Amino acid sequence: MAPFEKPVVAVDLGGTKITAAVITRKGEMLSRIYRLTLAREGPQKVINHMVDAVKLSVRKAGLELSAIGGVGVAAAAIIDISRGLVTEAPNLPRWHHIPLRERLAESLGKPVFLLNDASAAALGEYRMGAGRGLDNLIYITVSTGIGGGLIINGQLYNGTDGCAAEIGHMIVLIDGPACKCGQRGCLEAMASGTAIARMAQQRLAAGGKSRLAELARGKIEDVTAELVTVAARRKDGLALSVIDEAAGYLGIGLANLVNIINPQMIIIGGGVSKMGAMLFSPARKSMKEHAFKLPARTVRVVRPRLGMDAGLMGAAIFAQEKLRPICPALGAKK
Amino acid sequence: MAPFEKPVVAVDLGGTKITAAVITRKGEMLSRIYRLTLAREGPQKVINHMVDAVKLSVRKAGLELSAIGGVGVAAAAIIDISRGLVTEAPNLPRWHHIPLRERLAESLGKPVFLLNDASAAALGEYRMGAGRGLDNLIYITVSTGIGGGLIINGQLYNGTDGCAAEIGHMIVLIDGPACKCGQRGCLEAMASGTAIARMAQQRLAAGGKSRLAELARGKIEDVTAELVTVAARRKDGLALSVIDEAAGYLGIGLANLVNIINPQMIIIGGGVSKMGAMLFSPARKSMKEHAFKLPARTVRVVRPRLGMDAGLMGAAIFAQEKLRPICPALGAKK
Repeated sequence: MAPFEKPVVAVDLGGTKITAAVITRKGEMLSRIYRLTLAREGPQKVINHMVDAVKLSVRKAGLELSAIGGVGVAAAAIIDISRGLVTEAPNLPRWHHIPLRERLAESLGKPVFLLNDASAAALGEYRMGAGRGLDNLIYITVSTGIGGGLIINGQLYNGTDGCAAEIGHMIVLIDGPACKCGQRGCLEAMASGTAIARMAQQRLAAGGKSRLAELARGKIEDVTAELVTVAARRKDGLALSVIDEAAGYLGIGLANLVNIINPQMIIIGGGVSKMGAMLFSPARKSMKEHAFKLPARTVRVVRPRLGMDAGLMGAAIFAQEKLRPICPALGAKK
Repeated sequence: MAPFEKPVVAVDLGGTKITAAVITRKGEMLSRIYRLTLAREGPQKVINHMVDAVKLSVRKAGLELSAIGGVGVAAAAIIDISRGLVTEAPNLPRWHHIPLRERLAESLGKPVFLLNDASAAALGEYRMGAGRGLDNLIYITVSTGIGGGLIINGQLYNGTDGCAAEIGHMIVLIDGPACKCGQRGCLEAMASGTAIARMAQQRLAAGGKSRLAELARGKIEDVTAELVTVAARRKDGLALSVIDEAAGYLGIGLANLVNIINPQMIIIGGGVSKMGAMLFSPARKSMKEHAFKLPARTVRVVRPRLGMDAGLMGAAIFAQEKLRPICPALGAKK
């Protein structure tokens, strides 16, 4: 069997956990396993955990490593795609210019393909989720940070180095609040889970009345985006207004993307997106107010259909496409 | 001779003048003529001027209309590309949903292809100018307003409706200065010629000392970006610091694009770009400070090579490509 006909292993490398799954060409998941990333142990240890996870997932699927065509890795990191490097990774301490692709390939004896996790999710949703059949779409993940992936003219667009779609680090408020990346006023600093928590904490510290104080047992610094969501569901005024404000900023980020990319669809995933209408309604409204009418009317802003599997599915599809032999006659892409 | 082998007429429709040129498949310009747009006369009269300009350019090239394959039009407007409409055009009064493509095609009996002027310039520079041989580039025109065009994976990217790359209306300062488009804090309101004039006027009104007052004969409201440039060339402190500030904002816009698109090149054209190093040096510096290191190191920020002809050349190439028969075997694009 040619490598591209074999199942692949998809690996999702996050700051907290590693997921590995054996996935067939048709998108069937034969196994799925989790491991803790234990990021504080440093890059080489984490890579060892990834190798273990791959082997375990293959065993759990009842297969040998020889039955696997290759490995697709989606990582929460800035990727240098042509060299297979993790350039920077805010949630993985000491990951600077780590040749992840090469190290995994050596340990596993398999071809490895590496991409950013939000790009993988974009590819997954495009091929098997909410974006099927479209040409131009943007995937945005809103959680602790904000990441993105672009499908342009029916193809995953990774940019020249493989680090395109860093949507969270689009500056929308010059000299605005500090962002983890070192800049100020990035979309991530205005509309991520981190930003929501910070805004709620600031309002509480300024004497705002809210159930949040009680939910966090009086410790303002323990207020998280999750707690803000819980309070908002219980109609807490402060929590609702914080979410409204963050969603308004998110909408401005969406409007910028709508004016620049003019996509058919924007898919918003990630932990914060689970708020649902509470986030989506004001974000859509703000987007429509801040973008040109024509592209704003075209774009649909929706939730992902693959949920948390979008990245894994995308990593599998990415590997499968790279493994396929280049044959212009068949229209296969390089 | 098949239509795609014939020369085409390229038309550049601006707020002030209409340019028409007969251009061969090889990019040779056989003639070029100008007419005033006289935009205040309204859409139908302007369309008549365009028809006249096309006919005149053909005659000047010593040809008959029957020798022309088609017409490519680059317009300073928001274009609905699939329907051939001018949706909005800030510099063309009363142009709302004008079926420009159809009206020209009827009057001329030729196929007409319509696109945004900055997109046309992007295509021109990509095929025959500074961006030859690259895959991913952004063209930005900085003049009274700020427009843009995108080349993605070696193809002009117009977006779903044909109105992508509205780079000037990316919001970089929430609640910032008012923009002509009705929003606040757009890049155009921070770094265009209009913004430079406004900033200089504000500083003069606040009592700032400068040669500008004298250059504008004491009339602060007559200070333009051109005058600011003249004063800056004469080392005027206020003028230099205004340009520096605007270039810094431009650099933030560039950084956002670098983080989102990760292009190989950004080409900055338009009237304001003629300032040269005075604008480019601080803009490049600011871009590098505000973007991620990897994509910032990759991108080159350069001036156009075709100058004011980029849009005309792009319109001609656009028409020629659309006229070419679809033949997958030859690799021709639809």
